[in-house]
Amino acid sequence: MDSEDVPLFRPTRDGYRWDGVAYQPYKQDGIAPFKDISRQVLFHDASLGCELRYFEMDAAGYSTLERHEHTHAVMILRGHGECLLGTEVRAVKPHDLVTIPAWTWHQFRATAAEPLGFLCMVNQTRDRPVLPTEAELAAMKTDPAVARFLER
Amino acid sequence: MDSEDVPLFRPTRDGYRWDGVAYQPYKQDGIAPFKDISRQVLFHDASLGCELRYFEMDAAGYSTLERHEHTHAVMILRGHGECLLGTEVRAVKPHDLVTIPAWTWHQFRATAAEPLGFLCMVNQTRDRPVLPTEAELAAMKTDPAVARFLER
Repeated sequence: MDSEDVPLFRPTRDGYRWDGVAYQPYKQDGIAPFKDISRQVLFHDASLGCELRYFEMDAAGYSTLERHEHTHAVMILRGHGECLLGTEVRAVKPHDLVTIPAWTWHQFRATAAEPLGFLCMVNQTRDRPVLPTEAELAAMKTDPAVARFLER
Repeated sequence: MDSEDVPLFRPTRDGYRWDGVAYQPYKQDGIAPFKDISRQVLFHDASLGCELRYFEMDAAGYSTLERHEHTHAVMILRGHGECLLGTEVRAVKPHDLVTIPAWTWHQFRATAAEPLGFLCMVNQTRDRPVLPTEAELAAMKTDPAVARFLER
C-alpha cells in the first residue's frame, strides 16, 4: 500500500492491531522455521527509504532464525522474551532497543506466558534472509547459551 | 552516533529513557514556538536511509507548529493529546499511527494530565522545517477547530 492510499490518522483498535493495516499471519507447515508469528506493515511510503513493521509472536512463539545483509532496528513493543543475536542471548522487555547488524544470526522467542511484539525499521529495498545449514546450526549449538536458547 | 558505536542491546531504563541514547531537551527562550519537549535519537545507522526518534512533551507541552518537504511516520508511544494535521485536529492515544505528508502543517499537544511521547521515522537527509508567517497563522485560525487547538 503506497502512502497516497493510507489515511493520515490510523487509530489502533486494541493497541496491536490497526484499521487499514493488513494483519498477515505467517503460514505454517510441518517444517516452518517459525511459530505463531504475524506481520503488520505500519508504514511503507515511497518518500521514506524505510518501512516500519510490527511483528508479533503468540506466547511460546518464535521468529525465524536467519541472517541477511540488511540491518534491522528493533524496539520491543509488547511482552517479554529472549533475543538471540550472534552468540548473545538477552532477555527483552517493552521499549528495549536491539540493533541487528549485517549477516548476524538472530531470532526472537516469546515467553510461554504472553505474546511478544516488536517494531522493526528496515530498508524498503533489501536482500532475502538466509537460513542456517545443518553444519552452521551445529556450530552455533557448541555455545551452551545458544544451545539452551535454540532447544527451548 | 554511527551504528558501529552503538551497543547492540540497549535496554530501556524506565520505558522512555535509554542508556546510550542522549536525552536532548529543546532549549526554551521567551519566543520558542514549542514547550517542554525533548528528543532522543533511537536509531541512526548509515546503512538505513532513515532515523527513528522519540519525542516527548511534558504535560501541557507542545511541539513546534511547522511544515517541510520531508514526510514523517509517527506512532504515539505514551500518553494522550491532540494532533493538528493540515486543518484536522485529532485526539491521539498510545500506538495510534499518524502520517505527516510533505508541506502539511502539524503540531502535537499533550493533555494537561500527562506527558505525550511519540516515535517518528524520518529520512536521514531532509530539509529544514518552516514556521508559519503571521498571515498564514491568521488564515489557519479562520477554521474554528484549528483556532481552538492553537489557542488552547
